[in-house]
Amino acid sequence: MDVLEAILSRRSIRKYTTEPVTDEEVELILQAAMAAPSSGNARPWHFIVIRDHNTMDEVARMHPYAGMLPNAQVSILVCADEKLENHPGRWPQDCAAATENILLAAHGLGLGAVWIGLHPEIDRIPLIRKLFDLPLTVHPLSLVAMGRPNEKKLPPHRFKPERIHYEKW
Amino acid sequence: MDVLEAILSRRSIRKYTTEPVTDEEVELILQAAMAAPSSGNARPWHFIVIRDHNTMDEVARMHPYAGMLPNAQVSILVCADEKLENHPGRWPQDCAAATENILLAAHGLGLGAVWIGLHPEIDRIPLIRKLFDLPLTVHPLSLVAMGRPNEKKLPPHRFKPERIHYEKW
Repeated sequence: MDVLEAILSRRSIRKYTTEPVTDEEVELILQAAMAAPSSGNARPWHFIVIRDHNTMDEVARMHPYAGMLPNAQVSILVCADEKLENHPGRWPQDCAAATENILLAAHGLGLGAVWIGLHPEIDRIPLIRKLFDLPLTVHPLSLVAMGRPNEKKLPPHRFKPERIHYEKW
Repeated sequence: MDVLEAILSRRSIRKYTTEPVTDEEVELILQAAMAAPSSGNARPWHFIVIRDHNTMDEVARMHPYAGMLPNAQVSILVCADEKLENHPGRWPQDCAAATENILLAAHGLGLGAVWIGLHPEIDRIPLIRKLFDLPLTVHPLSLVAMGRPNEKKLPPHRFKPERIHYEKW
């Protein structure tokens, strides 16, 4: 799928079939994640691949927007180790770029995925940290749920010319 | 260009030819930017398209990693209005996803681009705010310099299997 087509047609997919997502697909998606730009090329990210539905169900119970997780085939926790940063405080941007690559790569592979926000909701972080045994220097940014799409969505219409300025605000 | 190929082959391009980047290319790139996911689909972003080299030269003088700007054909300031957020504090992630889309779309169009970091460096923000007349609720995340590539770079090798965990840290 062409990169512009992929970017312009990607939607949040929250319904999945029971067909599995392969380990090869997950690895390709993580290659895409780690190809993201990062501040000072620090690549502070770590990824946790989750197939255990006990874990996904537990996140779904504690997170108001994670109701699709029990039906996901796999999910990926995107986090960063602050000790790996070159420019402190940039890890959320680095992990957001990696998350966007995950969503686009999944879409390009014919999968459906959705970005579940974690940072900076302070009520969610301690539970995630405990559930995944994260070290104290490691911060979760997002969780991406994915599977083969069981819903069809038209390309979004998000373009707003009024958000474009020229030279100055 | 295939989306996975685009993600895996994109590099930071800092050398540009004198060939112009068209308004049509900039609009397509901004369509890609605005197709990014955002927290609660709030799409809090605004974009400033800069072709004035006085402005780009001024940013290059005040920013330690913006030496390519005087040779860029166009640059795009990515910022967000906090008043548009559904979930406060998420705008850096939203703008980072939009910035990644800009980089990928530019690459897909045969352009070269590089992400110049602004947030959260507090010494850079006031100068940017003043230079572009940004309202106080509007926060700059990044500036993307672009042009037709005048350097060739091989695909990066950023994949680190040791950054992948399974089920738990």
